[in-house]
Amino acid sequence: MNIRARKIYEALFALEDLREIFRQALPTGLNENEEAQLLDGIAHVETIIRELKEGKGSPIKYVEDKIELRTREEEFININAIQPGGRLTAEARKALIAYGDGYSVCDKCLEGRLDKIRKPPVDKFHAELADFVGMDEARVVPGARRGFQAVASSLLDKGDVVIVSDLAHYTEFLAVENVSGVIKEVPSGEKNIITGDAVAEKIENVNEELGRLPKLIIIEHFDHRFGNEHDVYGVGKVAKAYDIPFLYNGAYSVGMVPVDGKKIGADFVVGSGHKGMAAVAPSGVLATTDEWAPKVFRGSEIVGDVTGRSFKHKESEMLGCTLMGGTLLSMMASFPRVKERVKRWKEEVEKSNYFIREFLRINGNKISSEYPRKHTLSKVDTRDSFDRIAKTHKRRGFFLSDELKRRGIVGQFAGSTRVWELNTYGLSWSRIKYLSEAFIEIAEKYGLAAI
Amino acid sequence: MNIRARKIYEALFALEDLREIFRQALPTGLNENEEAQLLDGIAHVETIIRELKEGKGSPIKYVEDKIELRTREEEFININAIQPGGRLTAEARKALIAYGDGYSVCDKCLEGRLDKIRKPPVDKFHAELADFVGMDEARVVPGARRGFQAVASSLLDKGDVVIVSDLAHYTEFLAVENVSGVIKEVPSGEKNIITGDAVAEKIENVNEELGRLPKLIIIEHFDHRFGNEHDVYGVGKVAKAYDIPFLYNGAYSVGMVPVDGKKIGADFVVGSGHKGMAAVAPSGVLATTDEWAPKVFRGSEIVGDVTGRSFKHKESEMLGCTLMGGTLLSMMASFPRVKERVKRWKEEVEKSNYFIREFLRINGNKISSEYPRKHTLSKVDTRDSFDRIAKTHKRRGFFLSDELKRRGIVGQFAGSTRVWELNTYGLSWSRIKYLSEAFIEIAEKYGLAAI
Repeated sequence: MNIRARKIYEALFALEDLREIFRQALPTGLNENEEAQLLDGIAHVETIIRELKEGKGSPIKYVEDKIELRTREEEFININAIQPGGRLTAEARKALIAYGDGYSVCDKCLEGRLDKIRKPPVDKFHAELADFVGMDEARVVPGARRGFQAVASSLLDKGDVVIVSDLAHYTEFLAVENVSGVIKEVPSGEKNIITGDAVAEKIENVNEELGRLPKLIIIEHFDHRFGNEHDVYGVGKVAKAYDIPFLYNGAYSVGMVPVDGKKIGADFVVGSGHKGMAAVAPSGVLATTDEWAPKVFRGSEIVGDVTGRSFKHKESEMLGCTLMGGTLLSMMASFPRVKERVKRWKEEVEKSNYFIREFLRINGNKISSEYPRKHTLSKVDTRDSFDRIAKTHKRRGFFLSDELKRRGIVGQFAGSTRVWELNTYGLSWSRIKYLSEAFIEIAEKYGLAAI
Repeated sequence: MNIRARKIYEALFALEDLREIFRQALPTGLNENEEAQLLDGIAHVETIIRELKEGKGSPIKYVEDKIELRTREEEFININAIQPGGRLTAEARKALIAYGDGYSVCDKCLEGRLDKIRKPPVDKFHAELADFVGMDEARVVPGARRGFQAVASSLLDKGDVVIVSDLAHYTEFLAVENVSGVIKEVPSGEKNIITGDAVAEKIENVNEELGRLPKLIIIEHFDHRFGNEHDVYGVGKVAKAYDIPFLYNGAYSVGMVPVDGKKIGADFVVGSGHKGMAAVAPSGVLATTDEWAPKVFRGSEIVGDVTGRSFKHKESEMLGCTLMGGTLLSMMASFPRVKERVKRWKEEVEKSNYFIREFLRINGNKISSEYPRKHTLSKVDTRDSFDRIAKTHKRRGFFLSDELKRRGIVGQFAGSTRVWELNTYGLSWSRIKYLSEAFIEIAEKYGLAAI
């Protein structure tokens, strides 16, 4: 345990207790009791800060009864496959402190529309967000999956066919299932890469089989299993040729990789806040063109039979407002850094390749993803290396997690020594090098030579 | 501005900057540079704490470029109609500090199911949540509206009729609209209260008009416009008699008012995290009975045509996992206090009535909600009092907001002096008394006698 990191948590928590005093007090000021409580509390904070400075004292372990402290980003290098893009920036954490309360974003809502709130500048954020992914209009949504759902629900009738990748995320399947659509998978072939040609061929097959064209194409730029790059530009061209709307699934790109939806030929761009935009879950973005916006962001048309009420300014697929508090503010506060970090994507890929290159020096290690890497998420195959050790080790597959943890590395799926995923996104060069050396060190410890 | 409250924010933010140092460092320890940075940072925190103690220094105003600090809970009494039930507890704020990162709850996910995660104890929380609202099974959802949507989507086909109140929230309309259902409103009559008889009558009308029974009844326990209590027990009986499933909309009750869904006769209970359970938005709960759970929480059945993949353990209406981070943890951390606070609902209603009684002492003030009050949300009518002042005041309706703000009270819809809503939920007796006196003081200042 890192006593100093934990003292920082302890100080944060003690300050939240101080804050609570003001939340209960009269706006005219604290009474005698509250003043005494505040003084006590400040003294407590001072003690913690002293301990932090000295690196002493007992480490805090729980947030609250039964909820353990979460310190994997402070005490460890986290190589979890899906977490790094959603790691909050310091700015997001600050915004969350200020805007955690339920409906915190609605203080100055004048029109009953989240995307039109001017203070905090939610309206501007929406405009910038659309621009950021190269589209005309954007809305924030509770996760990429809600973006798929809104598009599927807007475009599909029962029995309509949707083309997805054979590597597609399950949430695409579910979004289609909920409107009784039909899924048809494009084979990614031996290379595990979706091409425009493969999509075209599948469209033809569907047409032959069912006598009708698909109503929607959903393809991810990078899939969640291999982190392989798929030819979304090619898919965009095919989609245009067949005049089928194309949803670009950017769960593993938006917020990390530069994305220009229109250039790609996408009609919809979906991204995830908690997967790629350094935001609190569930959050995400659904962006589209001026052509499609009136359809997916259409106003409600239902009318009350008694009152005659209608809600034209509420968008039905959004169910009205979507992220009315901390989730949105975390996205907004991270956004300046997110805009900067996509410009450094090339370097992220370099670091990914550096690590994988080192990793492959270990005798028997293989990579299942395309190589050289084009993403930071990679699927590795250690059946001929670490798994051979696991076979006779008394901790079985856990020996590797144990060894990694001992070196301050977590996020590998505990017990996996066969085929598993990791993600180096956002790790500094020094962390990347440390990580690489750690794997080699472990390999050598168990007699797996590194070449 | 409350300099000390703002110094607390400043200290929290400075600590987040310290935390960031550990997030970038190697797990083996800080390097020289980082040590120096940490020392500097600690000195900065110490300065802020000193200023906090002395109540000196310049007050922080922004979280980040363009995002203003939000201090309405620390510097003011907030009487906003929809915010108080979602105000975070100190425990939730701490949990959020620890679990803000995107997919923070997935560290030890073994089954790919949010509700089965054991660390943090998400599984137990789900069981307790079902119990808390008197139902058999519960899932967390991104807002009450997603609960309505899941039920509507599971139960309705195109053209199916749903009974709602003529005071129903717009999100019920939208959930029905999205599956092409038909809304039929029950009149709440002169008293603005929905009775079981009125629901029965509407069902009969629908049957006469369309020759079929409604497929779902959605009625709120307390509506959002008047905060009136509707006869949900009566509705429950009628629903049973006609064998029509009944969704109890607890957006203004779950987390504040004791709710026993089965006793009420509900088939579904929906609550809101950000409206009533001291949680980050968007969050909420959908609970149901053993009878209905297999229908709304059904596993996915769609199958990939090429891969043969299916996702039986993923619940289609939930779109798989729902709240995978800070939103959920804020609900969980607040939950022990939420369970306690519903036991004090009677006192909340007493405080509400105390305030309204005082408020009605002002000549011309009226209440549009039922009276005595049964809820903390109330609609008041000041057309014959404050609005008469507004007519000739140079600030028009804003004079009242100005006067309130001067006394440390916010949350009234700025400029409203006619018919408007307020909510006293969670205010201590001393705050309630202060609030009451503030209104009387303002009235007297403008020559509106208080009787």
